[in-house]
Amino acid sequence: MVSGRFITLEGGEGVGKSTQIRALAAALGARGVDVVTTREPGGSAGAEVIRTLLMEGSDDRWDARSEALLFAAARADHVVRTIRPALARGAWVLCDRFVDSSRAYQGGGGGITDADLIALHGFGSEGLLPDRTFLLTVSADEAARRLAGRGGSDRMGSKPADYQARLAARFVEMAQAEPSRWRIVDADAPADEVTADILAGLGEWL
Amino acid sequence: MVSGRFITLEGGEGVGKSTQIRALAAALGARGVDVVTTREPGGSAGAEVIRTLLMEGSDDRWDARSEALLFAAARADHVVRTIRPALARGAWVLCDRFVDSSRAYQGGGGGITDADLIALHGFGSEGLLPDRTFLLTVSADEAARRLAGRGGSDRMGSKPADYQARLAARFVEMAQAEPSRWRIVDADAPADEVTADILAGLGEWL
Repeated sequence: MVSGRFITLEGGEGVGKSTQIRALAAALGARGVDVVTTREPGGSAGAEVIRTLLMEGSDDRWDARSEALLFAAARADHVVRTIRPALARGAWVLCDRFVDSSRAYQGGGGGITDADLIALHGFGSEGLLPDRTFLLTVSADEAARRLAGRGGSDRMGSKPADYQARLAARFVEMAQAEPSRWRIVDADAPADEVTADILAGLGEWL
Repeated sequence: MVSGRFITLEGGEGVGKSTQIRALAAALGARGVDVVTTREPGGSAGAEVIRTLLMEGSDDRWDARSEALLFAAARADHVVRTIRPALARGAWVLCDRFVDSSRAYQGGGGGITDADLIALHGFGSEGLLPDRTFLLTVSADEAARRLAGRGGSDRMGSKPADYQARLAARFVEMAQAEPSRWRIVDADAPADEVTADILAGLGEWL
């Protein structure tokens, strides 16, 4: 039996993470891999309830520290109820966002230190990290075009362009600091090329 | 202007905390003190929503770490939205349970270390501690009698007698470890005597 793999997709709003999760699940499933797709915040019954607290309401509904604790609580539930059981049975878990999104959003933009966020993750989820993380990057023009096409937004997505630019830079900084885990993928390319790039980044396990 | 005071009441279920909070608020109000009464989990709009997640549902709805993070998130919201603003304007805040309840319930009974709980409180609420904490203690027989009279219970109160005994011992242990902050009050006594004991424990500020 293959051992489970934990794979995450990261990046700003509108870079194509959910599209790529679906394409990857299909491609891996066709190779006979037991695939579980999930997303954050959410991915388990408790975490989905916490998700509604995080995504709804006004921008200032939560201060930065309460928000970071709620994300950590949701992630702890997601890890213990969904991700670890799937990995334990040998499944590959494809997750749309994980702790690196907290590090980028609550850390980079929200004023919480990276050390504090890593400590919260250490407490809540025993510091579980993905085996591989793909950062999907798009040019600023392409990001603006895709976001405009989406219509409504939520507490996390409704931020100005300079915030999105700082967020993108923060993701690249994290990826470059830990190159063995991260792969940076140019998501301006057509979706099928992006999928092929991601699959190439999983080649050692296929 | 007097400076604000942060006063908490702690102890197991049915020791009379909410009755004493009401009596204290009346007694202090009669002395011209600006009093704010509040309780945990809850005490602010966000924390009350989190409270429903913590108090409702089955016993195993949350694992211990998710639960500790949710309590810390609720407390952070309560501190930043209710407690600190009240203290800043000079009010006396009377709070039914605070971080010491997390230390007793999630720590003593729930398997989380005291160091981890204190670290979470340090992150979420900048480690805010009460100026004075009153531990209301009752004999095991009296506690059983009062709990039986309450009828229904919730996720936190519906625990067996040996759990309640360990909880009571944990509270006493915390009080003895920090005697400058804590006062232990015999709550088997009639309610008006308990109130008088608590007021005596605030005498230096009155």
